[in-house]
Amino acid sequence: MTPERVQRMHDILRKRQPDLTLITDAVFKPHNLSAIIRSCDAFAVNELNVVWPYDDYQTFRGRAMGSQQYVNVKTHKDVSQAIQGFKQQGYQIVAAHFCDQAVPHYDIDYTKPTAIVMGAEKNGVSAKAMDLVDHSIIVPMEGMVQSLNVSVAAALILSEAMHQRKNKGMLGENQLDSETYQIQFFEWCYP
Amino acid sequence: MTPERVQRMHDILRKRQPDLTLITDAVFKPHNLSAIIRSCDAFAVNELNVVWPYDDYQTFRGRAMGSQQYVNVKTHKDVSQAIQGFKQQGYQIVAAHFCDQAVPHYDIDYTKPTAIVMGAEKNGVSAKAMDLVDHSIIVPMEGMVQSLNVSVAAALILSEAMHQRKNKGMLGENQLDSETYQIQFFEWCYP
Ligand SMILES: C[S@@+](CC[C@H](N)C(=O)[O-])C[C@H]1O[C@@H](n2cnc3c(N)ncnc32)[C@H](O)[C@@H]1O
Ligand SMILES: C[S@@+](CC[C@H](N)C(=O)[O-])C[C@H]1O[C@@H](n2cnc3c(N)ncnc32)[C@H](O)[C@@H]1O
Repeated sequence: MTPERVQRMHDILRKRQPDLTLITDAVFKPHNLSAIIRSCDAFAVNELNVVWPYDDYQTFRGRAMGSQQYVNVKTHKDVSQAIQGFKQQGYQIVAAHFCDQAVPHYDIDYTKPTAIVMGAEKNGVSAKAMDLVDHSIIVPMEGMVQSLNVSVAAALILSEAMHQRKNKGMLGENQLDSETYQIQFFEWCYP
Repeated sequence: MTPERVQRMHDILRKRQPDLTLITDAVFKPHNLSAIIRSCDAFAVNELNVVWPYDDYQTFRGRAMGSQQYVNVKTHKDVSQAIQGFKQQGYQIVAAHFCDQAVPHYDIDYTKPTAIVMGAEKNGVSAKAMDLVDHSIIVPMEGMVQSLNVSVAAALILSEAMHQRKNKGMLGENQLDSETYQIQFFEWCYP
């Protein structure tokens, strides 16, 4: 481990945004989950909440995760419980979902504590989740197809959220509590 | 075919940007190509140039394309030839590639005729392609992983390009030549 790499880890940890998270609502294709994890990391999101109502948990762990342990991936059986947890902490819940109430994704203030719900490949965001959301958003599209790939949509939303936070100076100083910081630094050093 | 659907096709065709294209340099995973095709469509790009130096062309046609024939997909055996074709038409060639000369992706003027080269999953943009590019770009990342998924990076770049063109009013009136327009309209009606 070179001193440069250690320094790089500190620099990156200090940009992490603990109160911005993504909830995947039964997204199941490993390549999508893997692309989403990479985008979380790239856009300073420290925690990904994977709602995984399926049985073969091994498949998920083994294939989707690979070596990408730079993001804390928490799994949940039930989407309502996952969302309620964030609501109790005062997060706004934003669903990436096509519906009449949806606004363009850049119209949301992501500098507030925010959990973004992404829908499954075929079924989109579940009705159970939609019951609990505060806002719905759409990444505007100019073409014939009905939707983007879910990992693509997630990245476009996270990129916007990260830019808003950057413009507000929120990537400037450490926001992780010291315990999370220490554990994470250790895990990055000894993966 | 409802009159609304016919009208929708005209509205979308009139937004298409014939002088903005993507070249995939040996990108080979079907799910990545498929996500890229959807993003091209969503961001008003009418033509995708797939450099496919591999043998099993059937796999590519069959699996990557699916039903998504809203974008003209042209295939090329050789990346140099594909790029030269655009250079001769006066396009700027922009590679999404990590190198010392690279600038942030939003620093490029995409309202000029532009071909964007995306690199393969493992190998990135080939040396042969890099010999011919005018600019290199990077989507800035704030995390530990070295790169985004290629379809994610492509979407972030195309989204920026589309916004620049939209702000300049380029999505306002038809830019397709009438032959392309007619053929494409016909194909969308009778897929
Ligand atoms: C492939 S889409 C499936 C959409 C599903 N058929 C539906 O109608 O809800 C999977 C998920 O990607 C996200 N997504 C795709 N395109 C999007 C867009 N343009 N804006 C916002 N979210 C999008 C949504 O979270 C969606 O639930
Ligand atoms: C998964 S990357 C492979 C990178 C390859 N290992 C290299 O070092 O060139 C595949 C392609 O995605 C694109 N890409 C991924 N992340 C990018 C980023 N942050 N900025 C620009 N392009 C990116 C590039 O075109 C790259 O060639």
